[in-house]
Amino acid sequence: MKLLNSTIEKIKGLDESFVAAARTRMDNLIKPVGSLGRLEELAVQLSGITSSMHPVVDKKAVIVMSADNGVCCEGVAAAPPVVTLMMTNFIANGVSGMASIARTAGAGVVVVDIGVDGNVENDNVLVRKVRYGTGNIAEGPAMTREEAIKAIETGIEVANEQIERGVKLIATGEMGIGNTTTSTAVLSVLSGVHPSEITGVGANLPGDKIAHKVEVILKALAVNQAVKNDPIDLISKLGGLDMAGMAGIMLSCAASRIPCVVDGYISTVSALLACSLCPNVRDFLIPSHASFEKGSALASELLGLRPMLHMDMRLGEGSGAALAFGIIDAAAAISKDMITFEEAGIGTV
Amino acid sequence: MKLLNSTIEKIKGLDESFVAAARTRMDNLIKPVGSLGRLEELAVQLSGITSSMHPVVDKKAVIVMSADNGVCCEGVAAAPPVVTLMMTNFIANGVSGMASIARTAGAGVVVVDIGVDGNVENDNVLVRKVRYGTGNIAEGPAMTREEAIKAIETGIEVANEQIERGVKLIATGEMGIGNTTTSTAVLSVLSGVHPSEITGVGANLPGDKIAHKVEVILKALAVNQAVKNDPIDLISKLGGLDMAGMAGIMLSCAASRIPCVVDGYISTVSALLACSLCPNVRDFLIPSHASFEKGSALASELLGLRPMLHMDMRLGEGSGAALAFGIIDAAAAISKDMITFEEAGIGTV
Repeated sequence: MKLLNSTIEKIKGLDESFVAAARTRMDNLIKPVGSLGRLEELAVQLSGITSSMHPVVDKKAVIVMSADNGVCCEGVAAAPPVVTLMMTNFIANGVSGMASIARTAGAGVVVVDIGVDGNVENDNVLVRKVRYGTGNIAEGPAMTREEAIKAIETGIEVANEQIERGVKLIATGEMGIGNTTTSTAVLSVLSGVHPSEITGVGANLPGDKIAHKVEVILKALAVNQAVKNDPIDLISKLGGLDMAGMAGIMLSCAASRIPCVVDGYISTVSALLACSLCPNVRDFLIPSHASFEKGSALASELLGLRPMLHMDMRLGEGSGAALAFGIIDAAAAISKDMITFEEAGIGTV
Repeated sequence: MKLLNSTIEKIKGLDESFVAAARTRMDNLIKPVGSLGRLEELAVQLSGITSSMHPVVDKKAVIVMSADNGVCCEGVAAAPPVVTLMMTNFIANGVSGMASIARTAGAGVVVVDIGVDGNVENDNVLVRKVRYGTGNIAEGPAMTREEAIKAIETGIEVANEQIERGVKLIATGEMGIGNTTTSTAVLSVLSGVHPSEITGVGANLPGDKIAHKVEVILKALAVNQAVKNDPIDLISKLGGLDMAGMAGIMLSCAASRIPCVVDGYISTVSALLACSLCPNVRDFLIPSHASFEKGSALASELLGLRPMLHMDMRLGEGSGAALAFGIIDAAAAISKDMITFEEAGIGTV
């Protein structure tokens, strides 16, 4: 709890003097005012985060939190739980979807075993296991309150390590069979929306099993009675270790004034939890893609971040966030490389 | 006319055997089937375009067609026509919005004076002037039919030169004060939609002048009586040299089996003209962003290409297309770097 508290204490909002200066500069660059739209907003946000007129985001990393979910024994996922361990290895070995995308952006990939239900033996995986998978939320809590805090602090620690190594831009990713079920349970409490309206196919759960997935989520909500305004209660009762770890990454980024890219559904729910722990975290978050998973639009709306990419993706791993790295590079580039009308020696047109 | 005809003759559709093989491979990669959404579709398209299971798009260029529009004398644009020449230089000098974005993607920028109303003196600009700006479409045709063909062929020639130098992916861009007016006139004929429903602010035309812009477009439509199904008639009577040049780029790409990224409003209208000249061109086009310009959604819908990026941008220059380069790199990467379940030594999950 000490690391969590000290991290939260460090988090302030954007540097408003740089926000104002960057916005003025954006309005004076050689283009019609506002014509670069959200790229300008992003450039201004980067200046506000980094207190710099020329924000640098060159060194990037996707941090992937891998963990199993006990609720899988209820038959809520198409793939067996062993796939979590298998895919954790494939991501770390660079042959997964996100790993391929991250490489094109020149980004590093850090895979963390925060709770895989098995022993990951791979030199490319950081083993920071809080426990071997969570409990079945349809029967009781996912984990203890202490474990939830430890998982958040694990996320903080891993992100802190990357930032100490010079990483300037972090994206969140996850791997965990069953994690659309846990995310939907959490989102249902946070939003007050009935699970039947936000429960999706996850990783290709057959359509005729969705009703069962909704039933399992309803059972989890009834059994656990999680408290909406207590994010640690939500994580410990309905959550996943992946979600907790990603919330920790976001807290670390905000405390170190580093932009953090939110991936799809699970990441966005994690961002809601991070912002519930500390609302100022939101200033440091950058949206990426609109996940195809059913509850994703509601989660983005609650968070107040509008996705930039519409690719109908729903892979997870941080794949959509990695795809947004190029956009963030472009935002930094317009700050750095474009000139103002004055610098061009002419009046505003 | 000879180059135009011989180029169109070369254009065939996608290589369906590679489309089928790439789709099968996509379905067998280590991810839930379909979970990479439109990135998978894009990878399949790239295979169909290039007849390769590992399409290469490493060497990229944005080709910018710069030209003036005589209709500016009617007061349809906020900026004076001289800005076309000025911005042509700034783009070529690498300090514009698109130039900054293209650099982050490692793409080259080729600026073509296809019809600037003034003498561009810049070693970084290719001077291929068809004429010094167009005529005022509110009073008569923009150019002769011969000039329209010459402008299309100029686009073909410039793109052919880039492709001969090893460019594997081309994006279209333009610079020309007044070109949302000409594009809206063309789109109105192509779609049958009244100009009042699709006339936008362009480069920040004050809201109280939009009605006047609509009136000018209506006058252009009445005076010229362009023929909907004759794209050369449309270009010569209502068009711009920039539009013609971009249509030529798209024809060249399709003939050489190179993917071509469509930018925003003006590019999308140009794509409609290119597809009207040869419907198979569409197979080689890749959408980029949803321009904020009013008529853009209709143009994309008519073309049948759904934008991937939602950035509220409306700069032109090819800025949205350059921003999409990273997505196309990612599509190529999943083809090349991901492994199948079989290659991973396991059954499908």
